[in-house]
Amino acid sequence: MRATLMYSAGDVRVENVPAPGIQKPTDALVRVVRTCVCGSDLHPYHDLPASDRGTTMGHEFLGVVEEVGADVRAVSDGDLVVASFSYQDNTCSACRDGVQTACPHGGFFSTAQAEAVLVPHADGTLVKLPVEEDSDLLPSLLTLADVYGTGYHAAKQARVTAGDTVTVIGDGAVGLLAVLSAKQLGAEQIIIMGRHASRTDLAREFGATDVVAERGEEGIAKVRELTGGHGTHKVLEAVGYRNAYDQAVGVVRPGGVISRVGVPQYDEAPTGFTSLFGRNITLNGGPAPVRAYIEELLPAVLDGTVNPGRVFDRTVNLDQIADGYHAMNDRTALKVLVTP
Amino acid sequence: MRATLMYSAGDVRVENVPAPGIQKPTDALVRVVRTCVCGSDLHPYHDLPASDRGTTMGHEFLGVVEEVGADVRAVSDGDLVVASFSYQDNTCSACRDGVQTACPHGGFFSTAQAEAVLVPHADGTLVKLPVEEDSDLLPSLLTLADVYGTGYHAAKQARVTAGDTVTVIGDGAVGLLAVLSAKQLGAEQIIIMGRHASRTDLAREFGATDVVAERGEEGIAKVRELTGGHGTHKVLEAVGYRNAYDQAVGVVRPGGVISRVGVPQYDEAPTGFTSLFGRNITLNGGPAPVRAYIEELLPAVLDGTVNPGRVFDRTVNLDQIADGYHAMNDRTALKVLVTP
Repeated sequence: MRATLMYSAGDVRVENVPAPGIQKPTDALVRVVRTCVCGSDLHPYHDLPASDRGTTMGHEFLGVVEEVGADVRAVSDGDLVVASFSYQDNTCSACRDGVQTACPHGGFFSTAQAEAVLVPHADGTLVKLPVEEDSDLLPSLLTLADVYGTGYHAAKQARVTAGDTVTVIGDGAVGLLAVLSAKQLGAEQIIIMGRHASRTDLAREFGATDVVAERGEEGIAKVRELTGGHGTHKVLEAVGYRNAYDQAVGVVRPGGVISRVGVPQYDEAPTGFTSLFGRNITLNGGPAPVRAYIEELLPAVLDGTVNPGRVFDRTVNLDQIADGYHAMNDRTALKVLVTP
Repeated sequence: MRATLMYSAGDVRVENVPAPGIQKPTDALVRVVRTCVCGSDLHPYHDLPASDRGTTMGHEFLGVVEEVGADVRAVSDGDLVVASFSYQDNTCSACRDGVQTACPHGGFFSTAQAEAVLVPHADGTLVKLPVEEDSDLLPSLLTLADVYGTGYHAAKQARVTAGDTVTVIGDGAVGLLAVLSAKQLGAEQIIIMGRHASRTDLAREFGATDVVAERGEEGIAKVRELTGGHGTHKVLEAVGYRNAYDQAVGVVRPGGVISRVGVPQYDEAPTGFTSLFGRNITLNGGPAPVRAYIEELLPAVLDGTVNPGRVFDRTVNLDQIADGYHAMNDRTALKVLVTP
């Protein structure tokens, strides 16, 4: 089958690889109908050391079940399903605590930009979708695999509630869907910090009330100005760089929450009296247990109340996926949908 | 009047100073009936630079109102009252958000180890106590000024709930009252990390189910052993040093909360993928808005359900307060009660 391999920074190829097969009775084999390129795929695109074997890519997909192991009960051959970007048993203590991304029997997909994917712990990972393979809803349904659930995780962890003021840092797909999620949870004022007009325009359609293009101290001052000097109750940080963390500390109000879903590209950060402690700031977030949210988010996608699939602004065939990486890296595309 | 002054590390004196008087219509003047020495008073006791004028000390007190400004409504002359260690208007946006310690019109008491205290924003700061000046409950009531409310804040911020497993780091008065608070909120397993047997014995009486005397990696391993390898849902950190933070990260389980009430003696700490983010750990806490908790905690103190005043294991007169500091610094006393 064809699959995406990255050989070094910027070097993405589609090649023939051996097709996967069921190995354990809890596995399922899924033929990929839609996959996509993630903002986090750009990290290796920037700095992957060269190798002869290449690295498989991709963690977001929906597709049709082709075969299931003997113990799989939740899905069967022919079902259209979406997978969370993590696989997990969804029955252990970590999963029951709602932290599926910390399941000791789980892991993260890394071969989804391909024609087929082997899914471990299929019962804990796949959710059947009540639509056909040619549905117009596929782009929105695919966002349940990662970016929508991740934006929603940011808002849920921050406990966004009716009347809250919220800052969203980052205008990538996750930031935009954090805006949508904050709106769904009843936020009154949603300020997006981002500098790409086409993206912040979509953020406004998703529910943002204000856009702040400035960064650093200037951006912090702008958010404070928009909030009567207080800052916002909640900050959803969807970038992952230290300057985004510092920005979050600068715009959060006393007793507020900084919820991070951008993977930190740093180890240490200020947590002492002047940054977090003195003002009783809560810091949380992490890799989103999106599996926990799929059933909750599905109805509004199916009935068209929300259209998170609007984050896809380009579609390519699998064979053109290198162009998709290039466009996202260039920021000429926000998020690229891939049809195998 | 007599008041406590610290002139340099280890140099505590009681001297005559001018008595305070009402300055603003929102002030009250309180004659001190009980005050005490706080673990945090030991920080300057260790490292205060020498000065000629000395520094006033003390932030915990209860006493009798002697005079009120024209705008004070909540208390009047002759009332026995307890003050939170912070003063605040208790009406602004930060106070309404439950973060009284971040009130822009507030501050922290620093003259309570004396015969009288001037209380700014008396209506937002003082709570009338329905007992007499000779009540046996005074020690427990005095803990509402800081250490009990602070331990309770740790447990509340961590959202300790029925069935939770909890680690409390630190066997000072705040750690012990964090144990009591976790018990009140329904925790099932409460592990105290501390190495002073007399203190951890009291922790057991307050509700601790396990004591871990080991520190660092050894202590972390012990807590994991006591929790089936998982660590605890909640960690209440009542120390403030970096090694306590690292210990907290080591014993918290995925999706858990580290709630800090020990004032951080560090600025930066690990917050990245391997420490907090990867396991969706929440970090929160801060200077306790104890004013928010006094009414909630008062009934169980008044009816004897809880006896937080047991943290006082020595009583001195104001003139002997230097001995009190010395005993707490030596760890021959846990917490010293002072009668002026």
